[in-house]
Amino acid sequence: MMTREILERAKAASTDIGLADTGLKNRVLEAMARILVEDTQEILAANREDIEAAKGSISEVMLDRLSLSPERIGGMAAGILEMVILPDPVGEILSETERDNGLLITKISVPLGVVAIIYESRPNVTSDAAALCIKSGNSCVLRSGKEAHRSSAAVVASLKKALKACGVNEDAVMLVEDTSRDSATEIMKAVGLVDLLIPRGGKGLIESCVRNAIVPCIHTGDGICHVYVDRSADLTMAAKIVCNAKTSRPSVCNAIETTLVHRDIADKFLPILKETIPQVTMYLDERAGKLIDGETADEASFDTEYLDYKMSVGIVDSLEDAIAHIAKHSTHHSDAIVTEDSEAARKFTMMVDSAAVYVNASTRFTDGGEFGLGCEMGISTQKLHARGPMGLRELTTYKYVVKGNGQIR
Amino acid sequence: MMTREILERAKAASTDIGLADTGLKNRVLEAMARILVEDTQEILAANREDIEAAKGSISEVMLDRLSLSPERIGGMAAGILEMVILPDPVGEILSETERDNGLLITKISVPLGVVAIIYESRPNVTSDAAALCIKSGNSCVLRSGKEAHRSSAAVVASLKKALKACGVNEDAVMLVEDTSRDSATEIMKAVGLVDLLIPRGGKGLIESCVRNAIVPCIHTGDGICHVYVDRSADLTMAAKIVCNAKTSRPSVCNAIETTLVHRDIADKFLPILKETIPQVTMYLDERAGKLIDGETADEASFDTEYLDYKMSVGIVDSLEDAIAHIAKHSTHHSDAIVTEDSEAARKFTMMVDSAAVYVNASTRFTDGGEFGLGCEMGISTQKLHARGPMGLRELTTYKYVVKGNGQIR
Repeated sequence: MMTREILERAKAASTDIGLADTGLKNRVLEAMARILVEDTQEILAANREDIEAAKGSISEVMLDRLSLSPERIGGMAAGILEMVILPDPVGEILSETERDNGLLITKISVPLGVVAIIYESRPNVTSDAAALCIKSGNSCVLRSGKEAHRSSAAVVASLKKALKACGVNEDAVMLVEDTSRDSATEIMKAVGLVDLLIPRGGKGLIESCVRNAIVPCIHTGDGICHVYVDRSADLTMAAKIVCNAKTSRPSVCNAIETTLVHRDIADKFLPILKETIPQVTMYLDERAGKLIDGETADEASFDTEYLDYKMSVGIVDSLEDAIAHIAKHSTHHSDAIVTEDSEAARKFTMMVDSAAVYVNASTRFTDGGEFGLGCEMGISTQKLHARGPMGLRELTTYKYVVKGNGQIR
Repeated sequence: MMTREILERAKAASTDIGLADTGLKNRVLEAMARILVEDTQEILAANREDIEAAKGSISEVMLDRLSLSPERIGGMAAGILEMVILPDPVGEILSETERDNGLLITKISVPLGVVAIIYESRPNVTSDAAALCIKSGNSCVLRSGKEAHRSSAAVVASLKKALKACGVNEDAVMLVEDTSRDSATEIMKAVGLVDLLIPRGGKGLIESCVRNAIVPCIHTGDGICHVYVDRSADLTMAAKIVCNAKTSRPSVCNAIETTLVHRDIADKFLPILKETIPQVTMYLDERAGKLIDGETADEASFDTEYLDYKMSVGIVDSLEDAIAHIAKHSTHHSDAIVTEDSEAARKFTMMVDSAAVYVNASTRFTDGGEFGLGCEMGISTQKLHARGPMGLRELTTYKYVVKGNGQIR
């Protein structure tokens, strides 16, 4: 099917899924989880084909991301079921006012319509994104990477069976068949058919979407995150937080790339840090390089998202300098201060302009589940519409319903 | 000054204005209103130069929009003062949760940072937009049309005096000096310096911004609005509503362009309508043309925003057909049903996907003041971030402040 037709079908189906009540949407989710598990063999067969075709042309890490197993399919089903218990974000009355002229103005949450997701090779994104869209009453158009296409198609076939079994228009979940660059471009330009475009993947994909999209697009997932260790910090706590934020999962966007240290405690703290995370290669600024061994930071270091066991380390003269450094180099995702000084904490949280600003905790908590949203579609690093983890509510908009008895102006 | 430097200065000043408390922001607004009136003669002198230069090259309507008088300057000052009493949208705690691990997560409203407005020749937009930005803690970058540039510069000079008098960084309000297309393009591409771009003006300007902007941009002000007169409508009320929605101010975006009439009442209603608004040229579909005299609608009529004493008129077979027509031709701004049937009203408000959906009232109420927002920066016809009238709250975003005592994940 041509990409245009796929988008038009999703748009046409968006009214059906948008008007579905909570019970029906939850029955669809339950059926999706059940049928996904029932279809395990078909999905694994498709996945094996993807893996055979990809071998040699992609890295081991990518191959692992692409690989499915009965356990991973079970995990996908469990992820869908978790959404059943989350509150329905649609139909919430956000405000209600009666004006002096008698008009009753109700602001009510409604689905966006069609949400398009352009992603890479993780097959679980297919089921996650579809389930988030269904629960929030949106049609979704999935454009998976070429390597994962057979797996994604098998997963989508199962999800469509579930829609059909519940009497809901199957076109509410659509997979783009063309995996060339053309289809991605067509989605980015589909004004009137796509209400929100979410890129999920590497920096190149995200930048391409943000630069080329005419449809509304959310900038997600860039993460140059910082921990600043203040003069008054508990140094043991600071080392523990830096260690966790850097090493618990270096490839994710809420991992830190830079540690800044106040000059007054640098000679004490840096040796502790070095001992705590010997596996991390540190890129040190001039002053830090005089206190511990490591690589030398260059101009680009503090703007690098390593996503690896690597970290830039700098020494600052003051809290204000740390804030200025973060303003210059942060991607406005997650930044933390470790301090025992409540005034420093207050100033840092007020002045650092990031989606999540932490005091005495690891940046790794920036996550839909950890924030109590139950799930997430990605982490927005822009300020419009959604900031930080995007849950179900961030997949809705609102309309004003205005009731009168003949009012004119 | 180069446009780039103007944007950088506004960005640098955004921290100052962003941290200003409510009292200080209100003092700035009061000073702005006062100084604007004090500077009336200077502003009028600059305005006369603009008018002299523009004569002959722009229409009478445009000249009128451009012209200032002591009364109009007084009106601009009054508009600024109205914002003093509105609640401060910054610093509101939107949610607060303590997680099981002891993390305290507070979601708090914060300014966007830098708001850029590209507009045409109304000098009052200069003071309105600046005041909205100041009250919401944002720096603003104003890019006025060439015809109004001297007037805008005089107004901005007065506004900057007020910032200075209150000890606030004057760079919080910046006027772009270059009025060529280049400066508009530069603003649209200024990633990292512009947090929100709002185009205010005609269709061409808005489309250019939406198509070319890489920075977040809000689609505003397109209005192909409809009134649907249902089978059960009170026909006197319907005629009154259509008359108001079409003729009270045809040049604005919340005026209607199309009336749809249910076939069962068309022969009664259309003659009444014709009598009620003889000054409106009607473009009639085939069936309507058999009932009253008028022009013949062609394929393009129902997609035309006349902004004039012109209106398309069509007959539909059912409520469902009216909804389908609106889905196809509406710009999702404001659409109304006139009906005495509560089930038809319910269905219409649920299924019509517009920012404001009316029952038995004129679409002309879609306005920040009429909706109780106190003011507005424009009317969003997109679904992301803001929909319908954009007031102070729509000029803010939020951040998560997370406080812990050493939590790691």
